[in-house]
Amino acid sequence: MLVAASELMIERSSIEISLSDIAQKSGANAALVKYHFGNKDGLLLALLARDAATEMSNLEYLLAQPITSTAKLKLHIAGIIRAYHRFPYMNRLIHYLLHETNAGSADEVSKFFVAPLLDFHRRLLAEGVSRGEFRATDPVLFYTSLIGACDHLFFGRHAMSRATGVGPVTDDVCRQYIKHMETLICGGILTQAGEAAAAG
Amino acid sequence: MLVAASELMIERSSIEISLSDIAQKSGANAALVKYHFGNKDGLLLALLARDAATEMSNLEYLLAQPITSTAKLKLHIAGIIRAYHRFPYMNRLIHYLLHETNAGSADEVSKFFVAPLLDFHRRLLAEGVSRGEFRATDPVLFYTSLIGACDHLFFGRHAMSRATGVGPVTDDVCRQYIKHMETLICGGILTQAGEAAAAG
Repeated sequence: MLVAASELMIERSSIEISLSDIAQKSGANAALVKYHFGNKDGLLLALLARDAATEMSNLEYLLAQPITSTAKLKLHIAGIIRAYHRFPYMNRLIHYLLHETNAGSADEVSKFFVAPLLDFHRRLLAEGVSRGEFRATDPVLFYTSLIGACDHLFFGRHAMSRATGVGPVTDDVCRQYIKHMETLICGGILTQAGEAAAAG
Repeated sequence: MLVAASELMIERSSIEISLSDIAQKSGANAALVKYHFGNKDGLLLALLARDAATEMSNLEYLLAQPITSTAKLKLHIAGIIRAYHRFPYMNRLIHYLLHETNAGSADEVSKFFVAPLLDFHRRLLAEGVSRGEFRATDPVLFYTSLIGACDHLFFGRHAMSRATGVGPVTDDVCRQYIKHMETLICGGILTQAGEAAAAG
């Protein structure tokens, strides 16, 4: 049923799917869906938990790699943007479950999405600082800026596309954004001359 | 009536206000509110347009200052975060009007908020590049990352506060985030040793 829900949301590019759509696609009946998940939000939460668990185990794997902290950070940035792109519903589900449903769902999302990701940032930043690669950076502020920027490519893009002639998020746009974010997060926007001017 | 709506939303930290609340607070009657703005979304749109116009004229003023592009960028980052903090409803209104109401409202918000801000970024980035201060940077990608990161402090914070023990956005958190974003956007996260490692 989770597979059916996921496929439906990808097909329709929307999280507006009904329990009976899911039942029909999965071959189960709607009563069984209700029995397992309580209601539609319960099913959406279970789906997000499944996808989040996969991503979080990728983070543990990444942290254990014998590469520089900088390389891990770059792979992480690419990983977030690709995950949002591959599962376009993930981003919308997080917003929906965090902001529009009950406090219980929001707590669950915080626990299996926000908390482990923030913990990963804490550990990666600490590692990078201890190796002399990163400046000392507050993990909560870092989390906010990185996740906000990655999220906005998907959440803010359709707003931009209207009045400003900006196109949709294609594979190519994702690649460009990964490169942009890697450069921005790692090295900022200043040239060496700019840094000298800012310091002096 | 716009003043009444704005004060109500600040008092309540919520955009959930009714036409009759606004009528009562402003001393007008609800019929007059309807006559002027059509409905509640019309009034919210007019309020956002008023606030956006003030912010956009500040941007023009900033661009004309005899200071470095880097200094302008830093003032701009602080300006966005302070504006969101001073008008907590602005951020929620933008999300609401862009994503939950009709396409007409979303077009309006794009026109008076997204388009002028993106245009400002284009011009500031071009100026900074021509002065040798900034690396060549795509303005649409830059807009997405900067606005997304600033927005997320307010939009994402209450989600983080639940499971992760992260507190609300106080004046002090705003100051910290302004400093974080200035450092991140201008110089990135790498130390000089980190840059050497990333390059080599």
